Amino acid sequence: MPMPESLPDDVLELRRGGVVETRLRVPLETLADLRRVYTPGVAVACQRIHESPKRAYEYTHIGNKVAIVTNGTAVLGLGDIGPLAGLPVMEGKAAIFRRFANISAEPVLIDAKDAATLVDVVERIHLGFGAIQLEDIASPECFEVEEKLMARIGKPVLHDDQWGTATVVLAGLINSLARVGRTADATRAVILGSGASGIAIARTLTGFGVRDVVLVDRAGALYRGRTENMSDVKREIAKTTNPDNVRGSLAQVMKGRDLFIGVSSANQVSKEMVRSMAPDPIVFALANPVSEITVEDATEAGAAIALDGRAMNNALAYPGLFRGALDARATRFTAAMRLAAAHAVAGAAVPGELLPDMFDLETHARVGRAVAEAWHTSQDE
Amino acid sequence: MPMPESLPDDVLELRRGGVVETRLRVPLETLADLRRVYTPGVAVACQRIHESPKRAYEYTHIGNKVAIVTNGTAVLGLGDIGPLAGLPVMEGKAAIFRRFANISAEPVLIDAKDAATLVDVVERIHLGFGAIQLEDIASPECFEVEEKLMARIGKPVLHDDQWGTATVVLAGLINSLARVGRTADATRAVILGSGASGIAIARTLTGFGVRDVVLVDRAGALYRGRTENMSDVKREIAKTTNPDNVRGSLAQVMKGRDLFIGVSSANQVSKEMVRSMAPDPIVFALANPVSEITVEDATEAGAAIALDGRAMNNALAYPGLFRGALDARATRFTAAMRLAAAHAVAGAAVPGELLPDMFDLETHARVGRAVAEAWHTSQDE
Repeated sequence: MPMPESLPDDVLELRRGGVVETRLRVPLETLADLRRVYTPGVAVACQRIHESPKRAYEYTHIGNKVAIVTNGTAVLGLGDIGPLAGLPVMEGKAAIFRRFANISAEPVLIDAKDAATLVDVVERIHLGFGAIQLEDIASPECFEVEEKLMARIGKPVLHDDQWGTATVVLAGLINSLARVGRTADATRAVILGSGASGIAIARTLTGFGVRDVVLVDRAGALYRGRTENMSDVKREIAKTTNPDNVRGSLAQVMKGRDLFIGVSSANQVSKEMVRSMAPDPIVFALANPVSEITVEDATEAGAAIALDGRAMNNALAYPGLFRGALDARATRFTAAMRLAAAHAVAGAAVPGELLPDMFDLETHARVGRAVAEAWHTSQDE
Repeated sequence: MPMPESLPDDVLELRRGGVVETRLRVPLETLADLRRVYTPGVAVACQRIHESPKRAYEYTHIGNKVAIVTNGTAVLGLGDIGPLAGLPVMEGKAAIFRRFANISAEPVLIDAKDAATLVDVVERIHLGFGAIQLEDIASPECFEVEEKLMARIGKPVLHDDQWGTATVVLAGLINSLARVGRTADATRAVILGSGASGIAIARTLTGFGVRDVVLVDRAGALYRGRTENMSDVKREIAKTTNPDNVRGSLAQVMKGRDLFIGVSSANQVSKEMVRSMAPDPIVFALANPVSEITVEDATEAGAAIALDGRAMNNALAYPGLFRGALDARATRFTAAMRLAAAHAVAGAAVPGELLPDMFDLETHARVGRAVAEAWHTSQDE
């Protein structure tokens, strides 16, 4: 994997022993403390939960606890490196959960590649968690895992590579369209990458009202009737995207379009391709760690707005998404909750900026409140 | 379950939201921090581990991370209340791990009662941990789970209800025998309770040189040829205990014996039964939370030494056992490591006391060093 620039020498030293740890929330200094934290006092909490399992949300940490589940088959730009080599990423996610949303998150490394086993294992261990984040699981297994888990465990499940990314993209798009004075309806979009995030972005844009979305992958445009490099999920998304059923390469599809979103790999887009787009195009080049085209090159080639993965970081969305779902005791994530999150992220940007500062905790709190409210509203209907 | 005495009103309030949480070990205050903790910096650690999986012990938390695995089938004195209702106990254990041995421990609640599924699930998720503590899993499944896991995952696995208890009992016995001036060889023991801890204590005493150990359960003395209330494990332990193959009730077996160890339930032993023992008997009445006989009653009835579960707490042993196993990067727990732990616990008691102060961190550090040394010694041989 190419490194985008020189990194400080201490990135490994920093991680020695990991970046997160388990800590006490209560005093444990005397025998009296021990008798409250552990036996015999603990039996009171056990009995209360045994009488009514919902009380586990009161007397244990599960109401603030997220499992970060991975099998390591699609880690960042590194690919199928396995769950153990993916653990530093999961620890990083756990650090972000704590820092931005005060959530205790725990990496859960699952040694299995097939969707059925992944689902079975998570189903066996989900009792210890209030919600499940799926992370860095390859497509197409990720779709089946998310769908089956949602149906089986009755708790919020979110595949971050799909919905975290799509939520931040939508937030950025909301503010970008306002800046260039264009509507969703009038926007013709191309998405490069038909993996988990590309598919989720396509679904999200369509739900938001972008009528002309074309997905492009290594085999070119995704169209109804294509046979090369297809899957059930791609066949499904082809039905609701690409209204003109266009074919062709990325360069061909990009011509005349208003919005490019890249969730593929490094250096896939040239200046010429950006120049071929409609006037004042929007370019989100999100490949990690090296984007499809640099912000500088895209801007030089005429992009009205150009953002890369450093600005459009999933960490703007998922801490608040889970904060809201946990606070609302939601039993699942809904499209309405994700839409509310995108609007909240967009609304938290200071005037003149397209996205908010990740380190402003009010951003994440705002997302959390919006998500919880969206859940409650859907329950009232 | 009977409560031994009034508990403070705040035992539930204290647990609100749980007694442990995930915290950061590194700064995460700026975008530069984020780029080191998360992408792109994290990719360096992922790549290093992908090249050599052992490096996960350097660049992640697994070298200091223990899974507290339960299915909740034998929780304290509460029985089969399930994993969720058992979670407060697991959180309490996690608090103890952090407080006494600076270990990050994580409850893993497994929704399965059969040994085969328990083993399969732990095998699928063990990569995220450096060692496994099995907790509150009913007998006889616990034996199969421990044995199979040890064989399959190549990491230290310890069923605390067996070996934590047995190690502390042995530590107390070492100092008790010294005080009353008796040898292991000359000690005739009776153990009430043939569950996980009773069997492990019997094995441990036998290994320590106590030649006459009789296990007693609801069906009376465990002897070769008994048919009532038996299991494979009981048949096995009957071969190496009860040398005279005595039969009879607890009251009958206790007569003339030097050592009583109870790991059963409340109020099983009368003063008369203690009076029937050999002169200067030792009584460890460990039933939780109400012991087989009170320390006061046992002492009044002539016990030279009487201890209950408050003094003989597993938490004297398991934090140091895991500290040592993790520090030594041991691939399993051995009898030699447990024996070293028992001697270290015994040796940490201040003169005149039978067991050390749990809140003296040097006790646990001493146990850890002894356990690590025992592992290294066994590897050198």
